Amino acid sequence: MPYQYPPSLNRLINQLTSLPGLGGKAAQRLAFHLLKVEREQALSLAQAIQEARERIHPCPVCGNFTDQRLCPVCADAGRDRTLLCVVESVADIIAMERSGNYQGLYHVLGGAISPMDGIGPDQLRIAGLLSRVAEGQVREIIMATNPNPEGEATAEFLARKLKRPGLSITRLAHGMPVGGSLAFVDEATLELAMAGRKEL
Amino acid sequence: MPYQYPPSLNRLINQLTSLPGLGGKAAQRLAFHLLKVEREQALSLAQAIQEARERIHPCPVCGNFTDQRLCPVCADAGRDRTLLCVVESVADIIAMERSGNYQGLYHVLGGAISPMDGIGPDQLRIAGLLSRVAEGQVREIIMATNPNPEGEATAEFLARKLKRPGLSITRLAHGMPVGGSLAFVDEATLELAMAGRKEL
Repeated sequence: MPYQYPPSLNRLINQLTSLPGLGGKAAQRLAFHLLKVEREQALSLAQAIQEARERIHPCPVCGNFTDQRLCPVCADAGRDRTLLCVVESVADIIAMERSGNYQGLYHVLGGAISPMDGIGPDQLRIAGLLSRVAEGQVREIIMATNPNPEGEATAEFLARKLKRPGLSITRLAHGMPVGGSLAFVDEATLELAMAGRKEL
Repeated sequence: MPYQYPPSLNRLINQLTSLPGLGGKAAQRLAFHLLKVEREQALSLAQAIQEARERIHPCPVCGNFTDQRLCPVCADAGRDRTLLCVVESVADIIAMERSGNYQGLYHVLGGAISPMDGIGPDQLRIAGLLSRVAEGQVREIIMATNPNPEGEATAEFLARKLKRPGLSITRLAHGMPVGGSLAFVDEATLELAMAGRKEL
């Protein structure tokens, strides 16, 4: 019989292998690490997973993560409720908030439409978006899905669905990244940066 | 105030960031994954960590992982007790066992001597190795530490400590990897492969 790890170690390696971005070797290294470090340290990771799952849920309005009834953005009476920024994931909210001058609300789709991955409109938080917009307070929707084919297709699909008089639907500008080097910018970005050039 | 994740999500990200090989972005992606998947799936990872820590301990003889009193190798009466293979980590035992024809015992050092990383002989399972060899049954010690500067230094350090009449101390051969391509072998390996060439 080939040499086997103890069953509980095999289970840990299998659990870790199922995480995105972790191959078999990395999962084994992590499992060994968790057996090697102080008991407390390994158990506090297990506890952090359990606590996060107990306390955190999606904001029922926008889909952001929260441990309260509403997420901090939706709960903030000072935000501009006529502006709605549609993003693919919660991580995008953090990126927007760090950039610092957006004062509107968000809507997290939970991904982008991608037939190749079996993700259609029904797998995304689109019904909630339609009903938020139907309430009539929103004046502009900023489509901030990712600048890749799935994100573009999702933005166009939603724009068609949401279009109506008095509602402006916009898309983040394409162009040169700040601090970037022209030589390293891909051709498609450069083409759009040229097309969108402005007078100095 | 800059936008903050809920505290329990921050704790989860911090715990994941403390794992080897996971940067901040990867840890955030993993945390989001654990919040997005089925509750059961996230909790079974937490449980696998806890169970592995409860059940698995180092074999008191060789340092291999086991959930029994002794590890399967030390407990196997059919293994050759005159042969002892010294390795850095438990993962090396698996690699040796998969290669399939070693029938002796192992000793896991738990690393290699590395003054740069603050690892001296006292941080390794060396006292146990000396007392195993002092029992007198071992006839050959195979130094299978890694073929890098730390592994070589550790093998030489141990060879000096263990040397005595009637005990053979050997080192795994250096050379071309099977299935490798000459053009991609590093110079040091090629030099050792040339030096160790054999008549056909």
